Amino acid sequence: MNKNSFAKTPPMGWNSFDYYDTTVTEEQVKEHADYMAAFLKEYGWEYVVVDIQWYSNDAGSKRDQHQYIPFDDVEMDKWGRLIPSPARFPSSAGGKGFKPLADYVHSLGLKFGIHIMRGIPRKAAEMRLPVLGTEDKADVVADPYSICIWNPDMYGLRHTAGGQAYYDSLLSLYAGWGVDYIKCDDICDSRLYPGSSFSGWEETRMIHRAIEKCGRSIVLSLSPGPAHIDRAWEYGRYANMWRITDDFWDDWKLLKGMFDRCEMWQDHVKTGCYPDCDMLPLGKVGKGFQAERMTNFTKEEQKTMMTLWCMFRSPLMVGAKLPGLDDWTLSLLTNKEILSLLGKERRGGQVMKTEHMAVWKNEFVQKIQKDGNDDDKEMAAALFNLDDTERELAISLHELGEEYGTWKEASLYELWDKDNCSTEDGKIRVKVPAHGVKVYKVKKLL
Amino acid sequence: MNKNSFAKTPPMGWNSFDYYDTTVTEEQVKEHADYMAAFLKEYGWEYVVVDIQWYSNDAGSKRDQHQYIPFDDVEMDKWGRLIPSPARFPSSAGGKGFKPLADYVHSLGLKFGIHIMRGIPRKAAEMRLPVLGTEDKADVVADPYSICIWNPDMYGLRHTAGGQAYYDSLLSLYAGWGVDYIKCDDICDSRLYPGSSFSGWEETRMIHRAIEKCGRSIVLSLSPGPAHIDRAWEYGRYANMWRITDDFWDDWKLLKGMFDRCEMWQDHVKTGCYPDCDMLPLGKVGKGFQAERMTNFTKEEQKTMMTLWCMFRSPLMVGAKLPGLDDWTLSLLTNKEILSLLGKERRGGQVMKTEHMAVWKNEFVQKIQKDGNDDDKEMAAALFNLDDTERELAISLHELGEEYGTWKEASLYELWDKDNCSTEDGKIRVKVPAHGVKVYKVKKLL
Amino acid sequence: MNKNSFAKTPPMGWNSFDYYDTTVTEEQVKEHADYMAAFLKEYGWEYVVVDIQWYSNDAGSKRDQHQYIPFDDVEMDKWGRLIPSPARFPSSAGGKGFKPLADYVHSLGLKFGIHIMRGIPRKAAEMRLPVLGTEDKADVVADPYSICIWNPDMYGLRHTAGGQAYYDSLLSLYAGWGVDYIKCDDICDSRLYPGSSFSGWEETRMIHRAIEKCGRSIVLSLSPGPAHIDRAWEYGRYANMWRITDDFWDDWKLLKGMFDRCEMWQDHVKTGCYPDCDMLPLGKVGKGFQAERMTNFTKEEQKTMMTLWCMFRSPLMVGAKLPGLDDWTLSLLTNKEILSLLGKERRGGQVMKTEHMAVWKNEFVQKIQKDGNDDDKEMAAALFNLDDTERELAISLHELGEEYGTWKEASLYELWDKDNCSTEDGKIRVKVPAHGVKVYKVKKLL
Amino acid sequence: MNKNSFAKTPPMGWNSFDYYDTTVTEEQVKEHADYMAAFLKEYGWEYVVVDIQWYSNDAGSKRDQHQYIPFDDVEMDKWGRLIPSPARFPSSAGGKGFKPLADYVHSLGLKFGIHIMRGIPRKAAEMRLPVLGTEDKADVVADPYSICIWNPDMYGLRHTAGGQAYYDSLLSLYAGWGVDYIKCDDICDSRLYPGSSFSGWEETRMIHRAIEKCGRSIVLSLSPGPAHIDRAWEYGRYANMWRITDDFWDDWKLLKGMFDRCEMWQDHVKTGCYPDCDMLPLGKVGKGFQAERMTNFTKEEQKTMMTLWCMFRSPLMVGAKLPGLDDWTLSLLTNKEILSLLGKERRGGQVMKTEHMAVWKNEFVQKIQKDGNDDDKEMAAALFNLDDTERELAISLHELGEEYGTWKEASLYELWDKDNCSTEDGKIRVKVPAHGVKVYKVKKLL
Repeated sequence: MNKNSFAKTPPMGWNSFDYYDTTVTEEQVKEHADYMAAFLKEYGWEYVVVDIQWYSNDAGSKRDQHQYIPFDDVEMDKWGRLIPSPARFPSSAGGKGFKPLADYVHSLGLKFGIHIMRGIPRKAAEMRLPVLGTEDKADVVADPYSICIWNPDMYGLRHTAGGQAYYDSLLSLYAGWGVDYIKCDDICDSRLYPGSSFSGWEETRMIHRAIEKCGRSIVLSLSPGPAHIDRAWEYGRYANMWRITDDFWDDWKLLKGMFDRCEMWQDHVKTGCYPDCDMLPLGKVGKGFQAERMTNFTKEEQKTMMTLWCMFRSPLMVGAKLPGLDDWTLSLLTNKEILSLLGKERRGGQVMKTEHMAVWKNEFVQKIQKDGNDDDKEMAAALFNLDDTERELAISLHELGEEYGTWKEASLYELWDKDNCSTEDGKIRVKVPAHGVKVYKVKKLL
Repeated sequence: MNKNSFAKTPPMGWNSFDYYDTTVTEEQVKEHADYMAAFLKEYGWEYVVVDIQWYSNDAGSKRDQHQYIPFDDVEMDKWGRLIPSPARFPSSAGGKGFKPLADYVHSLGLKFGIHIMRGIPRKAAEMRLPVLGTEDKADVVADPYSICIWNPDMYGLRHTAGGQAYYDSLLSLYAGWGVDYIKCDDICDSRLYPGSSFSGWEETRMIHRAIEKCGRSIVLSLSPGPAHIDRAWEYGRYANMWRITDDFWDDWKLLKGMFDRCEMWQDHVKTGCYPDCDMLPLGKVGKGFQAERMTNFTKEEQKTMMTLWCMFRSPLMVGAKLPGLDDWTLSLLTNKEILSLLGKERRGGQVMKTEHMAVWKNEFVQKIQKDGNDDDKEMAAALFNLDDTERELAISLHELGEEYGTWKEASLYELWDKDNCSTEDGKIRVKVPAHGVKVYKVKKLL
Repeated sequence: MNKNSFAKTPPMGWNSFDYYDTTVTEEQVKEHADYMAAFLKEYGWEYVVVDIQWYSNDAGSKRDQHQYIPFDDVEMDKWGRLIPSPARFPSSAGGKGFKPLADYVHSLGLKFGIHIMRGIPRKAAEMRLPVLGTEDKADVVADPYSICIWNPDMYGLRHTAGGQAYYDSLLSLYAGWGVDYIKCDDICDSRLYPGSSFSGWEETRMIHRAIEKCGRSIVLSLSPGPAHIDRAWEYGRYANMWRITDDFWDDWKLLKGMFDRCEMWQDHVKTGCYPDCDMLPLGKVGKGFQAERMTNFTKEEQKTMMTLWCMFRSPLMVGAKLPGLDDWTLSLLTNKEILSLLGKERRGGQVMKTEHMAVWKNEFVQKIQKDGNDDDKEMAAALFNLDDTERELAISLHELGEEYGTWKEASLYELWDKDNCSTEDGKIRVKVPAHGVKVYKVKKLL
Repeated sequence: MNKNSFAKTPPMGWNSFDYYDTTVTEEQVKEHADYMAAFLKEYGWEYVVVDIQWYSNDAGSKRDQHQYIPFDDVEMDKWGRLIPSPARFPSSAGGKGFKPLADYVHSLGLKFGIHIMRGIPRKAAEMRLPVLGTEDKADVVADPYSICIWNPDMYGLRHTAGGQAYYDSLLSLYAGWGVDYIKCDDICDSRLYPGSSFSGWEETRMIHRAIEKCGRSIVLSLSPGPAHIDRAWEYGRYANMWRITDDFWDDWKLLKGMFDRCEMWQDHVKTGCYPDCDMLPLGKVGKGFQAERMTNFTKEEQKTMMTLWCMFRSPLMVGAKLPGLDDWTLSLLTNKEILSLLGKERRGGQVMKTEHMAVWKNEFVQKIQKDGNDDDKEMAAALFNLDDTERELAISLHELGEEYGTWKEASLYELWDKDNCSTEDGKIRVKVPAHGVKVYKVKKLL
């Protein structure tokens, strides 16, 4: 199995976190799957992902004090593997796990994903439960010094045969359920102690090996960021996606900061290897956080976000409540031309960036290998206004690439407004609203 | 209760760690107390301290893999308070705790001390045990993110009324047993996460408050070091002793490094407030570490250590196996003139230090307030050779202090060799062996 | 020469920086000396200090662009030693240096101080000038990699015999002028390159040696801060004063922060060794900075500053324009009871500190060595309100010290208001304005 | 001008540093150019580069004390621009600069390069020389706080119009001489003060602009490393080459460490943008350093170095003394198949790396866009033994790439030994000497 064949293009889907926090239920997951199948599937959206603490019976019950309740009531099987809370996921009762729910999602032509925390439940270690496939018990495979600094559920695993056996047993179980996607948390940037080496590297390799053994093509997504740019090769070697920022929310400062992140990671986007800009906090979000709201992003900011994610070729995981989605948000998620920028034959790159503006391009990798006739060649160029007021932005074809400079002039088609225009004096020149973007399909003007 | 009245001079005693590691038993403690009463008590030695994991039934049983066994079998009472392992401390059976052993130690005219880890047992939190004096249970008062990075037994306590209640209940229990001294670990230098504030400050205050409430004069000793010099006032406010280094062992590099530590902390030695140079690894040590040996220090180094600790006025906690102690080591522990430097009316200070040598003095605080006649005034001066070969060292009376410079010449009495000599041309000048010391009582030559 | 005999109590004086920046002239210095002699001398004020760039002919002429003009026109003698700008200090003409001005200051019964930058003029090195007392020329004794990061005038000196010769020649010249006090800059906290050892340690020792050789009792003051608490002994060994903060100005945040600094350094105040809280920005300041103003401190803050500096026993260097000083500011500088706290027989210490308040005490060192009768014993206690609104503050006699607790009640005399009152229930209890202080002489109530 | 068109493939040449340090002369440069034209040019070697301090009349004369003599005697024109020392470069006399030497190099069909330090001579600033194209004089465009921490010659330039004018004047002069390549030093990793932003970013942009203005295609190479991976885009935007390590010498530890560097930078090698592994210390080196020697690298290590540099597509700058070059070293520099890996249609990448071994591949970018028939497709695979003893290494075709896995078996041609063999069971399996490499041309076995 080659992990780069699991995700030929950046994964697209819905994840329960932004709306439900830790509290999503089976019924809600199904409603979202139904919506996706009906309205989004044809545009490439396919993953339905249940985020953190689906194994907790208490999740969300003390939200004023704790996002993650210490020593809460979690469901495990006899081998110390977390299983869904039957109160929240009734079909999982009787040891069936997420199999029935995954089957349902699959029946709609979609894929099913779950969140896991790196490690083994603290409770399993304290109870000294047996571990499948090894003589070592949970108290021996668990490392009591390897904890997550924001979630109290797990201990990291020792880098031993026993530790590997636990991950093997876990992936075997989850593959058996039909899981297609695992978002593994506390593993992408989890430096624990001052001066310690990063504790997640070895566990990433262990999970990768467990996936290879389990016989199922499970996409591996690593959280939280920021990932370490100096170890880019390592992420690409073992995972399909890795978060390049800490949690992303509907705040312009975070969105503006993503331009720096994308600049830094742009050369590492490859087939099966996706630096991840994190979820899209669009539409209705925040209910589980006791802060239900329409996204704080302006419409311009929303377009900027969608455009940057697609130009860069980040995975897209929408956080909105899907049933009853408003037309505007739906239009963002179903713009075929924008989404086509994610295609595997394409590649994004930053052209320039200042305090006030950024320009990105997104091209076909094979752009220069044709027969020499570039009449039908095309590329996309996005002009982002990072300022707080409207600005006229400009970029020349030459700056977009030597080969485009030879075109002299180009026709332009704006992908959000669906307007046609053309360059003047070899330049794209346009007024862009504050925090907004204009993104063009650019073709040689014949 | 004023904690500075608990320890008018630097505490002196024996601690089980250097010889027994985690494994000391009641019988062994009693043998050491007997020895101390018979041979050391008259010289000021009084504390008998049981070090780490006296509550563990497994301690030491997997020494090749773990110093501290993860998820080991610890003894707790129903309130989640650690109690002695009855297998190792038979008199503690039936809920009597350390009371019988403390009574025994007291009967010899000595004092009894124990080691504790900051926090509440992880097992108590996992079991959600009740906490005496509060409605909050152990899972509520424990902080699952506050762990020790080298011992797996405990969680830190939340800084809440419930957390204080736990410490109050703990000190109440231990005061009831007759504990005179608590060495609290994982609290003196326990920065946990990158950038986090030091997690031990608040717990130090909580334990101090619990001692004030418990009604017993319990000396509070904080470990491990190095303590933070920029918070010196804070340590002095709440504790009696605090470690100024990480664990100290019989290694010249560590001993040489202590000169820097003492330089740094010398102005912070006050009545009831003792920066602590850590245990004295003299005589036979290391058995519990599977490395039983006579101390690796040369005799010269041993004198250097004893002299520095006493000049500086550090607490003295000997680590040797006491029963059967050799005459040499015993002579180090019973040199009255050296030990007198610890006196509360005295004060130590560094006079000079280079790569090759250091000079310290130790004076009566009231040296200059007498009647003007300094014929009977005296002070101590120690010349340390930090080099690896014998060297002639010299220091003038004037350098030792302006007031001594006026003496012109002084009589000298070496406290280890018990030799008399005098200054020449106003200077102490002496050959000192590699890593060795000459320490003099200095009086005006009449 | 023992440098601790140069300044038996914290130096008090006026320094030209806060009002004149780099521009002070001979006439202005004399006016300030005259004022000091007439109005302040009897209260202990004695140093008149000419601050930075008295050797520059251009100083202040491009104040909108540069505080210190790069490559400006500086006056040097043929040995590469800076001498006063004759345009600004006419009496220095003809190679007389500061001698005539120092003589004038001395004639008033005052002392004369100057500011120097660590090192040798860059221009001297570029010109390869000879250095007195060595064959090495300026380009050889100068270290081209050792610069100051905020002033462009100098290169640091190599730690060689030639480098020492330069400092010896400098101190010899300045001693010949009659300089009593040197404020040496770029030497107290001047870490230059990442990871480099602090470049000022060795130069501090070199200047100390040069002072010892020069035959004049010159107080050595080190700037800028913050000094490094872990090297406290080193500062005390070689200097009389060292700055514990970066430049201090009339801003409450800085004043509030000084409480942390004083907490940290309180045990290092000794005869001849003064951690320095920096200048007092009182009265009219800021003219040379193109921001002439009455101090931004409220009257309460001014009293807080004066009280903290005196309780702690910091040097006092007033920054106000003295001629024409207003009555209020004059009253701050002439409160004998406040100033008496600086006395060499006294010692200050923090009693407690929270977010909202701090309490300091200042006692006679010999307080407990009398005849046992403490009827005439006294101490000072200051209650500072660090909050932004008036608060009632309280402290018990017992908290001020065990020995005061035995008094039961005490008479209180407030040193600013000159009011009498007494404790109630053994406590000082008083309303203190925002950012203000009440400071009492405390005596046993008979 | 598009800087990416200046260097379509990684630049190859000779640089005077490794053999001559600061001392190379015109005659020596010409001898090297002659050798290159005669023996190396046909293999792609073309740049002849004069390294540091060609403007110094003293260079090398105090080599026991200084590599770079402080305040040495440098040649400048009246505009403060450094010009060659006429003593060392006689043809430069009379203001002709490097023009005659560049002409000579060009006449051989080669290109001419020089080293510069970021900034303007300190001496020019001290002398307040005029700057061409601006009213600002040298003392105004120079930043006295921006120095190099290992060379004393220059001050950095202010980021002003005046500063830009200086760089414009400099590039204009050097372009006029016929310079084709500039190695700019103290600019690639030159963080100066703790916490300061990196002072080289803006000057890199300024030099880039000056090159654009000068009208000549001058390759810009930045030193010293390590470059900052988080700013990779920035380097690629403004420079052609940038050093990814500190100075590289003939030491296995440094060579082994280069594998980590190449792993990190591999995705940033693009046309006109070359992360630079630094010079090749082959053959005879070290004379100017007073350590003349044949390279300390074993022959295996030399092949490893050449192979890694070429697989990765680093620039190649040989440091050997060329005249009289031995056959072995010449064979390393003239292996056409190894050098062909640098081709612009190729791309290198790490396949795997452990403590003991590393595998790299180097492929045609267009490998998968052909007609589907891959019978004539080829790639290169290198197996490096990083261990200190001979090891058998193996890698499967599948691991080299999914598409190669489908070949089942492949023919192998070793590029150093010029041996033919083939895979077994789909694997390359070979014994490789300690620190050595086997590098194969891999083709489908038909």
